[in-house]
Amino acid sequence: MQVGVIGATGYGGLELLRFLYNHSEIENIHLFSSSENGVAFSNKYAHLRKIIDQPLQQIEPEALQKLDVVFTSTPSGVSSKLIPEILTERVKVIDLSGDFRIKNAEDYEKWYKLATPPQPFLHQSVYGLSEWNAEEIKKAKLIANPGCYPTAVLLSLLPLLHDHIIDSENLIIDAKSGISGAGNKPNANNHFCETNENISIYKINKHQHIPEIEQAMSMFAFTDHPITFSTHLVPMNRGIMATSYAKVQNGVTESDLLSCLHNKYDQHPFIRIIDDASKISTSQVRGTNYCDIHVNVDERTGRATIISVIDNLVKGAAGQAIQNMNLMFGLEESCGLKQIPIWI
Amino acid sequence: MQVGVIGATGYGGLELLRFLYNHSEIENIHLFSSSENGVAFSNKYAHLRKIIDQPLQQIEPEALQKLDVVFTSTPSGVSSKLIPEILTERVKVIDLSGDFRIKNAEDYEKWYKLATPPQPFLHQSVYGLSEWNAEEIKKAKLIANPGCYPTAVLLSLLPLLHDHIIDSENLIIDAKSGISGAGNKPNANNHFCETNENISIYKINKHQHIPEIEQAMSMFAFTDHPITFSTHLVPMNRGIMATSYAKVQNGVTESDLLSCLHNKYDQHPFIRIIDDASKISTSQVRGTNYCDIHVNVDERTGRATIISVIDNLVKGAAGQAIQNMNLMFGLEESCGLKQIPIWI
Amino acid sequence: MQVGVIGATGYGGLELLRFLYNHSEIENIHLFSSSENGVAFSNKYAHLRKIIDQPLQQIEPEALQKLDVVFTSTPSGVSSKLIPEILTERVKVIDLSGDFRIKNAEDYEKWYKLATPPQPFLHQSVYGLSEWNAEEIKKAKLIANPGCYPTAVLLSLLPLLHDHIIDSENLIIDAKSGISGAGNKPNANNHFCETNENISIYKINKHQHIPEIEQAMSMFAFTDHPITFSTHLVPMNRGIMATSYAKVQNGVTESDLLSCLHNKYDQHPFIRIIDDASKISTSQVRGTNYCDIHVNVDERTGRATIISVIDNLVKGAAGQAIQNMNLMFGLEESCGLKQIPIWI
Amino acid sequence: MQVGVIGATGYGGLELLRFLYNHSEIENIHLFSSSENGVAFSNKYAHLRKIIDQPLQQIEPEALQKLDVVFTSTPSGVSSKLIPEILTERVKVIDLSGDFRIKNAEDYEKWYKLATPPQPFLHQSVYGLSEWNAEEIKKAKLIANPGCYPTAVLLSLLPLLHDHIIDSENLIIDAKSGISGAGNKPNANNHFCETNENISIYKINKHQHIPEIEQAMSMFAFTDHPITFSTHLVPMNRGIMATSYAKVQNGVTESDLLSCLHNKYDQHPFIRIIDDASKISTSQVRGTNYCDIHVNVDERTGRATIISVIDNLVKGAAGQAIQNMNLMFGLEESCGLKQIPIWI
Repeated sequence: MQVGVIGATGYGGLELLRFLYNHSEIENIHLFSSSENGVAFSNKYAHLRKIIDQPLQQIEPEALQKLDVVFTSTPSGVSSKLIPEILTERVKVIDLSGDFRIKNAEDYEKWYKLATPPQPFLHQSVYGLSEWNAEEIKKAKLIANPGCYPTAVLLSLLPLLHDHIIDSENLIIDAKSGISGAGNKPNANNHFCETNENISIYKINKHQHIPEIEQAMSMFAFTDHPITFSTHLVPMNRGIMATSYAKVQNGVTESDLLSCLHNKYDQHPFIRIIDDASKISTSQVRGTNYCDIHVNVDERTGRATIISVIDNLVKGAAGQAIQNMNLMFGLEESCGLKQIPIWI
Repeated sequence: MQVGVIGATGYGGLELLRFLYNHSEIENIHLFSSSENGVAFSNKYAHLRKIIDQPLQQIEPEALQKLDVVFTSTPSGVSSKLIPEILTERVKVIDLSGDFRIKNAEDYEKWYKLATPPQPFLHQSVYGLSEWNAEEIKKAKLIANPGCYPTAVLLSLLPLLHDHIIDSENLIIDAKSGISGAGNKPNANNHFCETNENISIYKINKHQHIPEIEQAMSMFAFTDHPITFSTHLVPMNRGIMATSYAKVQNGVTESDLLSCLHNKYDQHPFIRIIDDASKISTSQVRGTNYCDIHVNVDERTGRATIISVIDNLVKGAAGQAIQNMNLMFGLEESCGLKQIPIWI
Repeated sequence: MQVGVIGATGYGGLELLRFLYNHSEIENIHLFSSSENGVAFSNKYAHLRKIIDQPLQQIEPEALQKLDVVFTSTPSGVSSKLIPEILTERVKVIDLSGDFRIKNAEDYEKWYKLATPPQPFLHQSVYGLSEWNAEEIKKAKLIANPGCYPTAVLLSLLPLLHDHIIDSENLIIDAKSGISGAGNKPNANNHFCETNENISIYKINKHQHIPEIEQAMSMFAFTDHPITFSTHLVPMNRGIMATSYAKVQNGVTESDLLSCLHNKYDQHPFIRIIDDASKISTSQVRGTNYCDIHVNVDERTGRATIISVIDNLVKGAAGQAIQNMNLMFGLEESCGLKQIPIWI
Repeated sequence: MQVGVIGATGYGGLELLRFLYNHSEIENIHLFSSSENGVAFSNKYAHLRKIIDQPLQQIEPEALQKLDVVFTSTPSGVSSKLIPEILTERVKVIDLSGDFRIKNAEDYEKWYKLATPPQPFLHQSVYGLSEWNAEEIKKAKLIANPGCYPTAVLLSLLPLLHDHIIDSENLIIDAKSGISGAGNKPNANNHFCETNENISIYKINKHQHIPEIEQAMSMFAFTDHPITFSTHLVPMNRGIMATSYAKVQNGVTESDLLSCLHNKYDQHPFIRIIDDASKISTSQVRGTNYCDIHVNVDERTGRATIISVIDNLVKGAAGQAIQNMNLMFGLEESCGLKQIPIWI
């Protein structure tokens, strides 16, 4: 396979390379950049010295036509303009931006403050939540790869919502993320001295991942209540923990939640149900495509606490994108992604 | 004033010294230890070299009798045995452990798995939440200094509960703490490599601060619903952020919450209401006795998100203890505590 | 005393405020800014809410004339232009930039790549290494406050060089600093994800603190060999450790080094000689004006390893500046600076 | 190939698994433990759930006889007793402890304070510095895998010493390491709050890696001067930077150093010479077997500053061990080790 990456210089793009480089079915990786073509990639990123020394190429139709799949790891607002030009008969596209995730144009414009992508492309795009939409993904030409927070939240809550084990009203989701989620552009919110030794909260009830989560809950679990969703920044590079709170339905116990999750996920290689609360933490999945889930039901309150962790750059971005590529090309779902977490 | 500290070698005890050392009304600080008496304190803690070089003293009645106030920064289960021996006509005691916080013996035994302290002492102890219990604190002989999480949670929620602005049912509290909250005894949960670059969750719905929070909500806001309470460890030394979620009463707006908080706290030196969500974070209060509070009401869900931050070792322990001492001795509430946060 | 701070929005300026705020001899602090005047300071820095709410003032001669002392915490190249305008009969100036540190114009221009300040001002400026230049400082109108690295290096090496205990040839100095030394302007070198979990080295043998160190060694210890000097960035906010290597003179032992240091420093409140190698670390001095020093002599090689630690923002900047102010105004040297390190 | 790991529960052992798991020539990994046999490995280490669920086996001769190679990742003093029992005609052993590194029994006993291993085994052991001892490694039955500091130091200095480009007298080596180098046993030196936001120095001129470095310099570069060697702990999980200082021989320039290094290493896949000083840092090699080297010559002093970085757990332990296994079994040197660094 011939693979292209547009936007390889961002954190998501670099992470794509980390996995594509060892993917057994990939013959060549072509790197594209709008602004830095001609530059040897390892001049910019010395960690790639002696590994990926090739130059960045210009984004040109001819070069792209010869590829089998292109990953667009471009900012929201850019992908929607770029993809209509590169999506051809031959080329499949996996978009890591938010542009094609929201089906409702009004919602997209409200939460993203950007113009919605052209309808035909939006229409044909398939939401790439691998464990929930595999059949559609296999047939897709254009994948809207899920956001990092939605991936963590949906993988843990969808089975329980789908099976009516937890109440879809009054869902509270408190998410915590490492700093890499905010990208590599320097600003006061990622200055070391101002993020280190600090927890902050941002975009309270305003995060653009809210409509994505609600849309997927409606699509896969047929619920339609608005969620309360908070995002926090904690001083570490990688990792998301989503702690969700829901009323359980009458008589439901912790083991009902566990059964539901095991039923859904035991055959899926990347989802792990963790019994022991002391073993659910972001370092358990670091650097890999795993999503770990733990549940607790409190009899005093009749409420469940549901915790999931992912590496935001892997299962929350590049890893799931490659998982989707594998599905689209009929490969083993975990091809190129079988790695042991870099726990410490 | 002659002041004693029992348990000066723990993180809470060291933090007491940091503030007592510059307190204008204190003449002498006497340090006591059950196990390490005779040792020059600065031999153990070199950061005190040339500052506090005196030896640790044995815990003896005669030495304690001459003091005006003793801080007991001892583990739960130890204070309850120690305090009956040192509380005399003359000596006032401020206990930083959990032993005298829970009035109901059954609750204490259930959550702490320890025997409750002798009733007469438990009965006379006063809960030291400075901004809510000042009149009782001023008359007290024995203060049960609040826990770190309860302080952060109660200061932000009590005004809103008391004034019926938020719904006391279905309170969800998601708290995040730095590692110092777990004490200075080395174990796998505070090993650098296993806590760094990691978020974990612990004691889900089992934390001994739950009955303390519920008791204070009942005492000061007359509510009696069980809370859902989660505690997370994030990789930093100090700081607690408590993110709380509640339904607002019909028609209530964000500015109603703000008014309520300003009414309650504008005259209190250590509580600050922060308008700008991007300015509420643990580093804003680091090293000081401040508690910052921010609120957000989401019209889509009718739910409020209420955020408070403290330094767990200061307002959550040593600082509030000294604030209580000031109240007990008729001093200015902020005496010895007026410091600018060590923001970076 | 009426005190002014120009450049209060930088890390050094903020740290000045942290100490000046509790300084018993200061009546008022006036904050000046060239670009942000009129802004309430605590709107920009929420950690100052309810503490320093006054607006930033414009830098105007009339306002400055009424002050007793002005701290200029401005970038190099700015102070040299500003100070000639504010230095009057009445006003004393303490400059925290590098502009007045290098007496030799050629050296300044070579290492700073900036035009040297006007000669008369350069000539009257006094190098503010408090423990070594107190008599001159007491008489000074204009202080060139030392750089952070030079402070750590000089305090540990000067006594040993002065007394010919170590060899001034072949001095190797390997310094490590927290990220705050690089200032608060966001760039790739202080992006959290790229500095966290990382050690880097910068300005190898090119740091502008090299001529400052060599000049002071010549001035106070009468040596004149070029030094080898490396600076590393380590993932923490504050702190400098300088590890220096020198041949010891024939027959010199570890206890000779210790005696020399004790002789020089035992009467100085902020310099501490640490016997136990396991107790010399940057956290031992965090947030305070202390400089801790440890020495080791290796008989196998006849070489000494000399370690010193400071808080780069305190003894390496704001703290030493206030110590110099105290000396200039005949106050107790440690006035406003007696604090216990915030060890954890 | 059938591979065994003894001591899989330590950081080095876990890292071996991370690479062996994806090694194309390995059929089975057998995990042994003296104390925890029978326990499912992923019960202890949840990051291995769904990956390595097999139980730990008892260390028994029969089980070990059937293996092709055994990695002993056991403490110093344990390997020396264990290896004589497992080294048979069939089984090759790669020892990650320090036991077989020091050929001189007296030196071992002096620096390690332990009894030296039996002479015949010590005699047949081969020092596993892959890039310098490949021919011996290929023929070896027992490998003494190098220490983490020696690997970083020797790879950068040996070419320059061997070719007489730098002076072997007066070598100063200032090394900095992440906390994982100290192992996973909790103690005050790896407690999060006491290592975070802190640099410390330890074992000044007393580190047991000193005789290992000196022995290898003698063996490969024929020099015999004692070195000055300091080790610092910096607050991060992984990574070593060694900054070394040496006089250059008369007339030698920076480009002479570069030529020497390129000549030696251009054909070696894991050694990279980095031109740009701003690109030499520990994160550039994180999680991988690379060693990056940068050099600087200061004309003012005639001294070279030589910097090298490795991941202490990979090139400094598990990665080099696997590289050595590849050499011993005639495989491609980089088999199983071709990974892109996890830069952020």
